[in-house]
Order: sequence, then structure tokens, then C-alpha cells
Amino acid sequence: MTYIVKNTATISDELLEELKLVSVSTASHTLVEMGYRNAYMQGIMPLAFPDDQQSAVGRAVTLRFIPLREDLVKQQYESDKLEESPHRTSLESMTKNDVLVIDTGSHMETGVIGDIFTRRVRYLGGQAIIVDGCIRDLQRVKDVNFPVYAKGVHGGAIPRSLMSVGFNEPIRCGGVSVVPGDIILADRDGVVAIPPQCVEEIVKIARAHDELEERWIKMKLDEGASLHTHYPPNAEAKIEFENWKKENGYA
Amino acid sequence: MTYIVKNTATISDELLEELKLVSVSTASHTLVEMGYRNAYMQGIMPLAFPDDQQSAVGRAVTLRFIPLREDLVKQQYESDKLEESPHRTSLESMTKNDVLVIDTGSHMETGVIGDIFTRRVRYLGGQAIIVDGCIRDLQRVKDVNFPVYAKGVHGGAIPRSLMSVGFNEPIRCGGVSVVPGDIILADRDGVVAIPPQCVEEIVKIARAHDELEERWIKMKLDEGASLHTHYPPNAEAKIEFENWKKENGYA
Amino acid sequence: MTYIVKNTATISDELLEELKLVSVSTASHTLVEMGYRNAYMQGIMPLAFPDDQQSAVGRAVTLRFIPLREDLVKQQYESDKLEESPHRTSLESMTKNDVLVIDTGSHMETGVIGDIFTRRVRYLGGQAIIVDGCIRDLQRVKDVNFPVYAKGVHGGAIPRSLMSVGFNEPIRCGGVSVVPGDIILADRDGVVAIPPQCVEEIVKIARAHDELEERWIKMKLDEGASLHTHYPPNAEAKIEFENWKKENGYA
Amino acid sequence: MTYIVKNTATISDELLEELKLVSVSTASHTLVEMGYRNAYMQGIMPLAFPDDQQSAVGRAVTLRFIPLREDLVKQQYESDKLEESPHRTSLESMTKNDVLVIDTGSHMETGVIGDIFTRRVRYLGGQAIIVDGCIRDLQRVKDVNFPVYAKGVHGGAIPRSLMSVGFNEPIRCGGVSVVPGDIILADRDGVVAIPPQCVEEIVKIARAHDELEERWIKMKLDEGASLHTHYPPNAEAKIEFENWKKENGYA
Amino acid sequence: MTYIVKNTATISDELLEELKLVSVSTASHTLVEMGYRNAYMQGIMPLAFPDDQQSAVGRAVTLRFIPLREDLVKQQYESDKLEESPHRTSLESMTKNDVLVIDTGSHMETGVIGDIFTRRVRYLGGQAIIVDGCIRDLQRVKDVNFPVYAKGVHGGAIPRSLMSVGFNEPIRCGGVSVVPGDIILADRDGVVAIPPQCVEEIVKIARAHDELEERWIKMKLDEGASLHTHYPPNAEAKIEFENWKKENGYA
Amino acid sequence: MTYIVKNTATISDELLEELKLVSVSTASHTLVEMGYRNAYMQGIMPLAFPDDQQSAVGRAVTLRFIPLREDLVKQQYESDKLEESPHRTSLESMTKNDVLVIDTGSHMETGVIGDIFTRRVRYLGGQAIIVDGCIRDLQRVKDVNFPVYAKGVHGGAIPRSLMSVGFNEPIRCGGVSVVPGDIILADRDGVVAIPPQCVEEIVKIARAHDELEERWIKMKLDEGASLHTHYPPNAEAKIEFENWKKENGYA
Repeated sequence: MTYIVKNTATISDELLEELKLVSVSTASHTLVEMGYRNAYMQGIMPLAFPDDQQSAVGRAVTLRFIPLREDLVKQQYESDKLEESPHRTSLESMTKNDVLVIDTGSHMETGVIGDIFTRRVRYLGGQAIIVDGCIRDLQRVKDVNFPVYAKGVHGGAIPRSLMSVGFNEPIRCGGVSVVPGDIILADRDGVVAIPPQCVEEIVKIARAHDELEERWIKMKLDEGASLHTHYPPNAEAKIEFENWKKENGYA
Repeated sequence: MTYIVKNTATISDELLEELKLVSVSTASHTLVEMGYRNAYMQGIMPLAFPDDQQSAVGRAVTLRFIPLREDLVKQQYESDKLEESPHRTSLESMTKNDVLVIDTGSHMETGVIGDIFTRRVRYLGGQAIIVDGCIRDLQRVKDVNFPVYAKGVHGGAIPRSLMSVGFNEPIRCGGVSVVPGDIILADRDGVVAIPPQCVEEIVKIARAHDELEERWIKMKLDEGASLHTHYPPNAEAKIEFENWKKENGYA
Repeated sequence: MTYIVKNTATISDELLEELKLVSVSTASHTLVEMGYRNAYMQGIMPLAFPDDQQSAVGRAVTLRFIPLREDLVKQQYESDKLEESPHRTSLESMTKNDVLVIDTGSHMETGVIGDIFTRRVRYLGGQAIIVDGCIRDLQRVKDVNFPVYAKGVHGGAIPRSLMSVGFNEPIRCGGVSVVPGDIILADRDGVVAIPPQCVEEIVKIARAHDELEERWIKMKLDEGASLHTHYPPNAEAKIEFENWKKENGYA
Repeated sequence: MTYIVKNTATISDELLEELKLVSVSTASHTLVEMGYRNAYMQGIMPLAFPDDQQSAVGRAVTLRFIPLREDLVKQQYESDKLEESPHRTSLESMTKNDVLVIDTGSHMETGVIGDIFTRRVRYLGGQAIIVDGCIRDLQRVKDVNFPVYAKGVHGGAIPRSLMSVGFNEPIRCGGVSVVPGDIILADRDGVVAIPPQCVEEIVKIARAHDELEERWIKMKLDEGASLHTHYPPNAEAKIEFENWKKENGYA
Repeated sequence: MTYIVKNTATISDELLEELKLVSVSTASHTLVEMGYRNAYMQGIMPLAFPDDQQSAVGRAVTLRFIPLREDLVKQQYESDKLEESPHRTSLESMTKNDVLVIDTGSHMETGVIGDIFTRRVRYLGGQAIIVDGCIRDLQRVKDVNFPVYAKGVHGGAIPRSLMSVGFNEPIRCGGVSVVPGDIILADRDGVVAIPPQCVEEIVKIARAHDELEERWIKMKLDEGASLHTHYPPNAEAKIEFENWKKENGYA
Repeated sequence: MTYIVKNTATISDELLEELKLVSVSTASHTLVEMGYRNAYMQGIMPLAFPDDQQSAVGRAVTLRFIPLREDLVKQQYESDKLEESPHRTSLESMTKNDVLVIDTGSHMETGVIGDIFTRRVRYLGGQAIIVDGCIRDLQRVKDVNFPVYAKGVHGGAIPRSLMSVGFNEPIRCGGVSVVPGDIILADRDGVVAIPPQCVEEIVKIARAHDELEERWIKMKLDEGASLHTHYPPNAEAKIEFENWKKENGYA
């Protein structure tokens, strides 16, 4: 029997909701400090993202493509096995608060997601689609108004050069491991894959950090405070901050 | 005598007009199915595109640059031969419904098109400019409000590093062959080069495909239909579609 | 004693102000003609830029990062030496009309500038931040409404993979040398580093060039004039231009 | 249940033996003509290859790595689960005439094979190791005198940046799909992955092609025959060839 | 009529012979000093080169490939037009002291030269083959014992992805322009394309430079002379050199 | 005052001598385990290395180049300041057991080291030259029979595109930081930069590791031992090893 790495922790939908308030940058940096240095996906950008949304959060469902072999892709796409292909299985298995993460091996020579698939993922409760490769039909994908991340755009469709070979395995995406059940956090800065057991601490740290202090530091910087004294705040500045909080009724 | 590959078919302006209704993604995929697997240009993106336009269509006029040789570029740009250079010849030869396609060998170290040349191409009836390399003066090019596609932007001008050596030869652009007379279709998803003899079939397939069916599938997906049954539609779904058409007075 | 290259010329704030009217494309091309062929930074794009601003201009202050060594970055970031690090020294040394230019060795694996540092640079009178690498917290950086140029975005922070090692040395950025005191001109087309002694001539050439002639040529092109006769204008066209100027009261 | 593409044909050791006489170039080109255009692995070169060997042939056993997650790699390498890891399972599962093919996602930042593992593969009857990434300890690997192919060399070991996640799945290697049971043919020109059902025909075509004809053509070229008449041979040259065969007692 | 850049000067076989004594490095650097900064081909390496040969020299004959279009490549390779294709025309047009230079657009996805074509070029008096792309059948090409330069190796043949479109046009190779009639100089350091009118001066400068002085400088360095005084030689060292020449009977 | 990171530890020539027995792979991996994950230089290969030498070891002297600015490079190379340039200063400052490490910013467009400079470094007691970029005159450099590492070869010389700007600063090379005084270890697998305070432990670990155990494991593997039991050795195998040592008189 081969042992494959997996997530053991799971987290509640409520915690997912709280994670939405944390930015990708804060989560990435906090993970580095927690000992997880490789969680931010390089080069995976929001090609479609609703204007009125701040971030997308969900549990990773994974799908893996490799370059096609002509006989096998035919077998996969032109038969009654299509429904059982990793491609279709993963799409149809999506449930509420899932995020579909697709490993194409950084393949830039065809698109793997268009507006039809995007609509289906949205209907099933999916929160985002993340592609280590290309999407197609960008304009129509944008019209669906749903978070879709990728490295680029290509007009071709899957059977031009790929076939699907893995559903819910650990994969690579943007130079980062994505294990099924990883918590995906995505905003305008990109995407971070979070080990589920880390989410609670990230939320806590982000909250403590926190907005109050950050707001105060920015206020001070705008008044001319030096980075040397105020970022991070030295002993004196910390007292100043405490006083300011009291004076302004925070605490 | 050396035999150079060429297009033999030509198509009417009316057919070009109909092609405008087909998306780049649909055309790319249809070409793959017709046996032309390499027609979508990789990495060539719309850097300028009119807001109120959906696509650009035209016949390819080609221009080829190579790295300059100091004595030859001087001879080309500082003499009475400038008018006869492939660079100027190609620009001035543009006529109604032409598209200028430029091969720089993916050169990213200077810009080959600015707002002056863009204005001239537009005046002569050109429909778009496609560059396998960089343009310059992006902001002013945008102000011309004309479709210009490229891989990037560079502040330099041609004599910084290139010289023109070919007019209306077969060239490479975005990893794709472009033969003079190829039909170029460009929209927000990028650019596809279509052998002229294929245009009619593409238009037909796209029309048949078609909007009606696609619209219905999207409607069904938004109602919760599964990809398994409805994309592509299985026997049952096809009957459902036929019924829907009748009920809604289509056909 | 080792002799390091440096700028000797300096220019006035008034001249900086005039340079704002020159475009990056014009400056890049003029520099090539003046014998400086490598001044435009490749691949450094405006990730944040105020809508109502046309260009940013200032004197280069430089900062250099290299990959971290674990013991040394700890020494740099977790001690009382942080204030004296090139990183913090360069930021706090910014004065009116400076531009911070950062060499990370094209490192794409972490971000070196976020909204806090951007705010401080703006407060101190800085005019722009230029990064040969990544920034982080793109959305919040945009909210500062200040010109920030980079090659990409990464969620990580400096101690993920870099440490600072040089302040106000000659550096590399976008494939171009940047020597402290170089004049940086940045607009929507990118960034050019100008040797200070060249600014006056660039302003003069750009002014002479000039808008009037360029406006007239574009007008003629829009009326159907050929590139052959009007770009650059031949003898006849030059007379036409002179007449037009007289008729329209320009000279 | 998810259906994963697989090989159904198997071939005998005798046929493997015959395949050794076919060159990688001939096999690659023949596969293209048989409709399999993507079988040659790009950029995977023989970093170690015995001087006295002409080619290596065997059945693909696959192994897949992804970037490590700190908690999971620890779990994999520092526990009693190491034996069950895909990494160790694949190595220990090798049997006579197997070839180990490793997908690291083109990861160039650590080495995954050194001389210890190479020795074990050789002992178990393996015929070659093919890595879409780096090996380490190049000099000692060479000393084992066994065919090892990779994209490069890195001094680091697996736990620097990778963890193993798949054993005998379809993988990507050198831009090509490798399905367990694929027949790997490797010589000084690189590596080709052959669908098992194609081997017999390739051997037949290569034999027919064949050495005799190729030897004769080279002889004719060395005597001054033109490509136009002799490559491929036209009607007249074919008669010439038949005569030559008779005269030299070959038929 | 379109004016295409061309070489006007021609040089004798005797001068070619003398050029063989100049190294690629010396020629490259001398050309930069003569105002031709871009003559050395980047990344084009000797994949086959006779052990007993020092350099290869000849006049450029050019050939250009672009990505294939399925109907056109069929027309080119499966008809009586094959002989007239640029591919075959260029090969058969080779005469004594020619060098075949091939532009594939840096295409790394198939090989364009194998041992058959190499033999023909050698027979016709060709001196080398230079490919901006891949060759195939590396081992057999090596067996021909003829200088062949390329960027890499691929098992595929031309009709896998390319078709020929230009014979004796100006092309790009290794980031450098190659105009028919350019003088190609190739040794173990790579390849340089020399404008014919520059050859005489290069030979003269290289001879003057020269071996005698260089030999003396190396001798002095091996005795401990400093670069400061002896490379380039200062006034004192020049006198020392003159004396040494007299003492050793060189002048 | 700006604080720049530096090495504080120094090590004896005797320890350097002992380090020569450690391989680059062992040192790289040991450093990762000691918490220094980024010490092996990616893509820096031995382009020249004496046949009879096993490794090269020495203390880093650093030199940094950036793209030239035409006025400044002239000032540097055509004046009496040449001797004081970082380029010449670093070369002439080399002493026994130094290694010259050169940061060109991965510049592949000119060569920075040829045989003259190599000879001088050797004469002064230097042990190797490491270039994050190109060398020139490869053949003559090989003839010097001295370890020279680089990313590639280019025929051009420094003033084609670079100028020197830093001597004995911390630099980047092969994606790794090199701080003056770092201990460089180089063999046929590449190069590793070792913080001086780590050398003693690396030597100790490598010795303990050690050859004896490694020799025994390889012997066992060649006899058929499984990786599961013998690599790393489990409890039973450790006893077996101890017994073998006793039986063979090793302890």
C-alpha cells in the first residue's frame, strides 16, 4: 500500500467566513512565520473577479491534466467514460464552499476552463477556480462574474493538447503544493493555499495584528512618523498607541 | 525558382463581416477539429482595443524585422530607400480590410509601432495591427482607439535594434504561421490566423453550434443541469432542447 | 581605494518639472540618438498609478537586495541594527523629488514593498517607487494612490527570501543601470533612467520636436497624407507646415 | 469511481530487445507518422550513460513529486511511513526491464536522484532513470555506469523542497505524457515514450526502412548523388538500389 | 518594388583562409570596436565538431522555417514541389566554402538537420551548418565529423511542426542578423556573423594585435607581472616588449 | 552610517584543505539540515576544470557588474581610473586561497573572463573563478587548466555591455548570496557558498557520515540489500555494520 500525504484537519464554514477578512498578503506572510514558507502561488492572477467581492475562500478540490496521448484522449473524450474522467468527475463533485484547483503543469498551449464549466462550478456552490495554466473565452468567463485565476489565456480547448488524469490528488499549482482539503484564500493579490490546521491561528494573528494598530500606524505615517520609531512601534510608540486607544475609547 | 507556400483561396468582404460574429475561442477550437491545430497566437494580447467593438477581422499583410546590422539599418533609414523598405512599403500598401501582422522574432527590446503608424493604418482601411514583439507609446496608441495587439511595451524605436527585411512573406507570429492573405480574427481573447478556405466552414459551424443551443445550455446549467447530461447534451437533453425550441417559437 | 562610477551633474527642480511634459517613449528614443541605447527598463510596469497624474519624475535613490542568508537576515531584521540596514536607511533618507529604485535581482519569489513603505515614501516627498521584482498587498498599495512600478506581485514579505545589502550604489533595474542621482521619468509606458547631464537636451529636443509638428502630422495623416511624404516631412511638406503655421497664427 | 487512462497492451522482453536497435530519432519520427506527435521528451539529456551501451529500453514505472509542505514532508521522511511513501515504494518496486520515470514539475531547485538510488535501481534490474528535473552527486552517479537522464544538476536533496505524492500514475515528463507501462527508449539523442501497442510496428518500420537503404543512400551521397534524386529515392534511384542489392548479393 | 538589405562586398577564398586563424572571441570583440555590436550568436553551440579542426569559415546561405500549416506542409513535402522548396533548394545550392544558416525562430520542438543532410552539405563543399533551433540524430551527425551548431536536440523531423518558407533572405540566428553572403566564423566558442567588408580589417587587427604581444603578455603574467602595468601594457612595458623582441630576434 | 551584513568568522588554511574532501552535494545537503537552505548555486557549471583535480576551495572575493552607461564605462575603461575600477582592483587583490566570484546579474550578452584574467588569478594564488554570467575564449581558458565556472559562453568582452561597480560587497550568484569571506567549495557538481562558521561542522559531519558507512551501504546495495532496511540503516542493519567493521578491522 502506498501512503499518500493528506490533510487530517477540517474546519467549519464559520471559520472560512472569518478567513475572508484576512488578506492574501497577511496570510502568506503569517504562514512563513509559522514555518510554511511556500504557500503563495506565483504568477496565478485574477483574470475574472467580481467588482463587489473582496476575497474568495474555500476547500480545495483538485484536478490534474497531462499532455494528451492521442489514443487515450480519444478514449477519454469520445466514449461513455467521459463522465468518469477526472475532468468531469471533479467538476460534478464540487459542493458548497469548494474551490477547484487545476494542475496542467504550467501548460500554456490550450485553455482548460471556459464559461460553461465556470457556470456549473458556481451553481454547485464553488467559490473560485484556480488554474496553473490557461483559461479560454475570457470575455464570457468575465460575464459569469465569478473568481477565476490563471496564468494566461489560450483559444484552444482541452483536447488540443491535454487529457485529465487525476482527481483529488495532491498537486502542484503556482509552484505550491495543493492537497485536497487545503483552504484556498484568493483576493486581488493572488492566491494562497493554507493547511487547514493553520487557519484558526492565521485568523487570530490577523485580528490581533491588527486593523487597529495598522490603522494607527498609517495615521502616524501620514503625520510624518518615522519607520524607525513607528514600524514596528518601539517602546515609546507602543505607549503612545495605548494612550491613543484610551483617548479614543478603544479598550 | 524557389516555390514558396501561399494562399490560393480568397474570401469576400461579406464573409469577413459574418466572421466577426464568431469568437476567437470558437474559431480556434473549430480549426483544431478541422485539422489545423496551431492557429491561436500565444501571448499576443490586445493592448489597445475600442470599448465599443467586439472583434476585428481582416486579411493579413505581413512585415518581418530582424536584428539590425549597423551599416544596413543606416542604409535603410537614412536614405531615399526608406520608402522602399519593407517597413514603409507594408504600411503604405494597406487597403480596406487588411490587418498588418509583424514578425520581430519575439524581440522585446524595442517598440515597432506607435501612434503615428497606427493612425496611417486606420486611415487606409486597416482593421488591426498584430505584433509578435513590442509597441511603444502605449498611451497615445490607446488614444487612436484602434485594435493593436502585442506581447509588451518598450520605449525604444525601431532603429534601436531592428531593421525590416520582408514584406508579404509567410512569417511567424505568436508561434503560428501567418501567410499573406490569411484571415485574422481578433477579439478580447487574442488572435487567430485562419486559412482563407476555412472561413466559410467556421462561420457555418459556429452558427449551427450555436448561439441558440449555447444559450439554452447555459440556461439549463443555471437551473442546475449536470454537465453529464447537458454538456454536450445527451439523447434525452436533445429532445428537451427541441421541445424548448418549439415551445419558445424558435423553428 | 576603489573608484565607483557616479553622476557629477545635478539638475534643478525646475528642470525636473519641465521633464514631466516629455513622454517615456520620446525620452527613450532621444537617449538612443544621443548615444545612450539602454535607458528604458524592460518589463517594469505601473502596478499603481494615480488616474489624474501624467508622469512621475525624480532623482534616483537606490537600494539593493540579495537572497537572504539565515544568520545574516536575522541579524539584520531582529536587532537594533534594523535602523541602519540599507533597507530602512534608504527609505528614511528619501527627500523631496526622490524616486526609490530597488534592485532585487529580478527576484519574483517575495514582495519588497507594501502600503506602509509606500506611505512613508510619499510623506517624505518621494515621487515614485520602482522595483525590479515584486511588490505585495497590491490592492492597498493602489489605495495609497502613488506611482509604484514592479515586475509582479507576491504575497510574501522581505524576510521570506531576501536581505538588503546596498544603499545608494549603482544598481541594475529592468536591464538598465541606475546610478544614484539618475533622473527617473515614469509614465504609463514604463520607466526610463536618464543621466542627469542629458535632461536639458531631452527637454529641448522634445519641445522642438515638437507638439506643434506632431499635431500637424497627425492632422495630415487623418486627412490621408502618406508616411512617404509627411513622416518625416519631406521638403515640400515642410513648406506646407510652415504655411500652415503662418495661416494659423503660430509663428 | 474515477476512470484513469491506462495502457492495456503489454509486450514481451524479446520485443524490448529488438527495440534496442531502433534509434530515438527514428522512433520519434515514426510515432509522429503513426499519429502520436508528442513522444520525444524535450530537454531531458543523458547526464550519465555507459560508453559501451547504445541504448536503454524498458517499461515505465512512474513517481511524482510536488513542492513540499513542511508538516507533510516531515510526516513522510521522519516516520515509519517512509517505506510506504511513493518515493520508496516506486524504487523498491522496480523489476527487470523497468525504467523509473520521475515527474518533479520541472523543478530545478533540488536533486532527486543520487548514486545510492541509482545503484538500487540497477540491482533490481532497472534499465534507466529519467528525471524531469535535477539529479545530484553527478560524479558519483556517473561512476555507477548506468543510464540516468535529467534536465540538470542540483546539490540539494529531496527534503530541501519536494515530497513524493504519486506512484504509478500517468505523469508528465519533458512535455510528454508517461503512462505506467509505456515503453521507454533512450539513447544519446534523448528519450522517447512509446505506447506499448506501437512498439511492434516501430520495430517493423525501422527494420524495413532500413539500414540497407540508409547505408546505400549515404554511400550515394558520399559519391555526389543529389537529395533531389536520392532522398527519398525517386523511381530511377529505386531501380538503381535494387540493382545494387543484386550485384552485392543482398537479395 | 521593395528594397531588401543586402551585402555588396565579396571576399576571396584566400581571405577566408586567413580568417581561420582568428578566434571567434577576437572577431566578436573587434566587430564591437568597429561599431558592429551584435555579431556573436547567443546560445548556438558546437554539437558536432571535428577534433582536429580549429575553426570553420564560409559564406552564409540562409534558410528560414516557420510553424507548419497542415495543408501547406503537405503541399510542400508530399508533391513534386519538394525539390523547389526553400528547404531542398538551399541544401542543393550549397557550393564550396558556403555555410548553411537556418532560422527556425528558436523553435525547440523538432529537429531540422540530421546526418543525411549533413553529408550532402559536406559533399557540396559546405563548411558548417548553423541552426537557430534543434538538430536530430546527434550521434550519427557526430559520426559525419563535420561542424554542426545548434541550440539543442529533438528527435522529431521537420514535418512534425515546421515548413520552409525562405531561401537566401536576411534572417535571424542566435539573436543576430544573417544576410546572405555574410562571412561565418565558427570555433569551439560559438559563431560570429561578419559583414564581408569587415573581414580584411579583422584579419589585420587580429594579426597586429597580436600573437606575439599576447604570447609575451601571458609569459609576463606567468612571471608575476600585474594587469595594471602589463594588460594593456603601459609605456614602460611597451619598451620592455620592444627590447624583448629585439633580444629574441623578432624584429 | 549604513550597516552592511558581513562575515565575522574566519577559518584556517588547514580547514580549507580538509573541506576539499567533502563533495558539493554533501555540503549542500548538510547546510540545508543546519538551517541554511540556499547555498548551492543553480546553473553555474564547470566550463573549465583540471582533469586531475577533485575540488576547489577558497575564500570569496566579490566583484559586481551592471549594464554599462556609455559615458561611465568610457570613464572607467579609457582613463587612469582603470586601475582603481572594481574590476581591476578585485583581480589584483586576489591572494592565496581566494576565489573570485562575479555577479553580472545573470547577464548572458557578453563575456567577463578570458584566459588573460584567468592566468593572473592563478598566479596570485586564486583557486577558482565563479561567474553568474558568461566567460569568453572558452578554449584558451581551458588551456590555462584552472577551475572556471559560469552559466555560458559569449564572444563579446566587458565594454560591449557591462561596467564594474562593486568590489567585495555582498552579491548574488546562481540565486545565492555570496558575502566576502564566504567559503566557496566547487567540484564537478557545481558550487556551494558556505558561511565560514559552518565549515568545521560540515567537515565533521561529512567525516562521521561517513565514507566508511557509505562504502558499506553501497556494498550491501550491490549485494541486494533493500533501501527500506539499509538506507538509512535500521537498527538491525546498524548492528550488521558494527559487526562488519569489527570483522574487517576498522574499529
